[in-house]
Amino acid sequence: MSQSFQAYLQQAKQRADRALNLYVGSFASPYSPADSSEYLARLQQAMQYSLINGGKRVRPVLVYAAANAINPDTSASSNADKVACAVEMIHAYSLIHDDLPAMDDDDLRRGQPTCHKAFDEATAILAGDALQARAFELLTELEECPAETQLTLVKILSTASGQQGMVGGQAIDLGAADQTIDLEHLEIIHRLKTGALIRAAVAMGAILANASTQQLADLDRYAEAIGLAFQVQDDILDIESDTATLGKTQGADQALNKPTYPALLGLGGAKEKARQLHQQALTALEGIGDSAQTLKDLSSYIISRSH
Amino acid sequence: MSQSFQAYLQQAKQRADRALNLYVGSFASPYSPADSSEYLARLQQAMQYSLINGGKRVRPVLVYAAANAINPDTSASSNADKVACAVEMIHAYSLIHDDLPAMDDDDLRRGQPTCHKAFDEATAILAGDALQARAFELLTELEECPAETQLTLVKILSTASGQQGMVGGQAIDLGAADQTIDLEHLEIIHRLKTGALIRAAVAMGAILANASTQQLADLDRYAEAIGLAFQVQDDILDIESDTATLGKTQGADQALNKPTYPALLGLGGAKEKARQLHQQALTALEGIGDSAQTLKDLSSYIISRSH
Repeated sequence: MSQSFQAYLQQAKQRADRALNLYVGSFASPYSPADSSEYLARLQQAMQYSLINGGKRVRPVLVYAAANAINPDTSASSNADKVACAVEMIHAYSLIHDDLPAMDDDDLRRGQPTCHKAFDEATAILAGDALQARAFELLTELEECPAETQLTLVKILSTASGQQGMVGGQAIDLGAADQTIDLEHLEIIHRLKTGALIRAAVAMGAILANASTQQLADLDRYAEAIGLAFQVQDDILDIESDTATLGKTQGADQALNKPTYPALLGLGGAKEKARQLHQQALTALEGIGDSAQTLKDLSSYIISRSH
Repeated sequence: MSQSFQAYLQQAKQRADRALNLYVGSFASPYSPADSSEYLARLQQAMQYSLINGGKRVRPVLVYAAANAINPDTSASSNADKVACAVEMIHAYSLIHDDLPAMDDDDLRRGQPTCHKAFDEATAILAGDALQARAFELLTELEECPAETQLTLVKILSTASGQQGMVGGQAIDLGAADQTIDLEHLEIIHRLKTGALIRAAVAMGAILANASTQQLADLDRYAEAIGLAFQVQDDILDIESDTATLGKTQGADQALNKPTYPALLGLGGAKEKARQLHQQALTALEGIGDSAQTLKDLSSYIISRSH
């Protein structure tokens, strides 16, 4: 990873963290009496706890980088922050619900107690629900942005996160534990569970910046490749990394008998797969030109990260 | 209840049921490979199970009736169906999550096993999550409707259902179990937990029909009154009705030591409160004129229903 890209990544992450803190914060509502804020404090804390926790912010950075590939001014705008936060809030809610005892039953997330451990199960369920609602609300709050564009963003995010996107992938994934599945089936899980939201992040950043149909198609092929690469690398890290570096329980997938790329392809085969996907991602960006450099660097980062 | 209103209610409920069945059904997605539908079947079933279950459809009927008070053509349109379904999907997801063991731990809902009993907890969590996403997606699918209007609908529904609306109310409600609370606190809970979504249903129907600012303000005062009346009557039914009529466990609120209007006002005081709120609702509609008759009948129905 080049020094300049490392600095970019650090800055983009800090920018996303600031924006998340700002947009998850208390906000006016016609339904909430002014003096009820104390009762909502615990819910608010749980939302913030799960959102502001040292995450890698891959999806927000993808929003910024995709917008930047088309129009740097758009990428620097507060609208890009809101879109980045909306995508990250969907991701954060899915992690909260995924960690629940009835789902993956995980105690650790990014080195910290999971939301239901730090608070309680009921609060964790509600914090996830509220983060999802806030994500869509935030997309209606863009400034000097045509309503058509905002509505398109709502459509993309809701489709990517729903039954035939992220949530559908989680449902298939739960059903696949303890099952023998093949590579095709594993890829369907990841295309939905993590791939859909990563594609949405790239598409949303690009649409905010008024990308052409051709640019959107190129960027979608890029996003599809890095979405899978991200998951392959996750599976590799579950085997190779230790719990301290990973920030979650090492070997958790193996312990749950979850299907993984290394289990199906061997560790070497999984690494080769990640390299191939990285190459596909670079090829997809050829038509975009020099402004896609950050997206290329992000693809390298995804397959070389250690946590 | 007049015979003609009874017939209207029956027809509106059937119309909502048909629309829910249509719009929750399988739909195309760029993320979902064509042959993965079998893996998503269980999630789809859980969503349908919780949505198509003999519910009263109070919120969809309010969408239709509010639209009808402003413009009967809008009320009859498929756009009204989509708005009605979006609101009901939010309501349905909140019931699924509310019934979970970590929340109210309810086994029965409308006389049937709750979603996590009929399926399993993980599927119930995901079905609720997917219904929320589908609700927002549906609001982006209106036909011949300005993007500004659709975006306003997304904004209203997300605000009403989120942290400072329905979910916030549930969080406060959970914290209030086993606590001694006063009338003001109880009203805050209900304004958020059920009131916000009922106000959203009325506002969304009216906005779809291009209501004026004055009409929206009148309808909002109406919706605020019936929202509270609905909850007061719910509390009364929890005491007076039997489990078979209610379709859920009678006395469940009392068993959970939940604060209720009868507990604070006595049964007679609670009934008087419901009558006062009904009167406020009728007064709020005076400026709307004859086209608000169905909304008036709905208010009567809400405080006289037996389940």
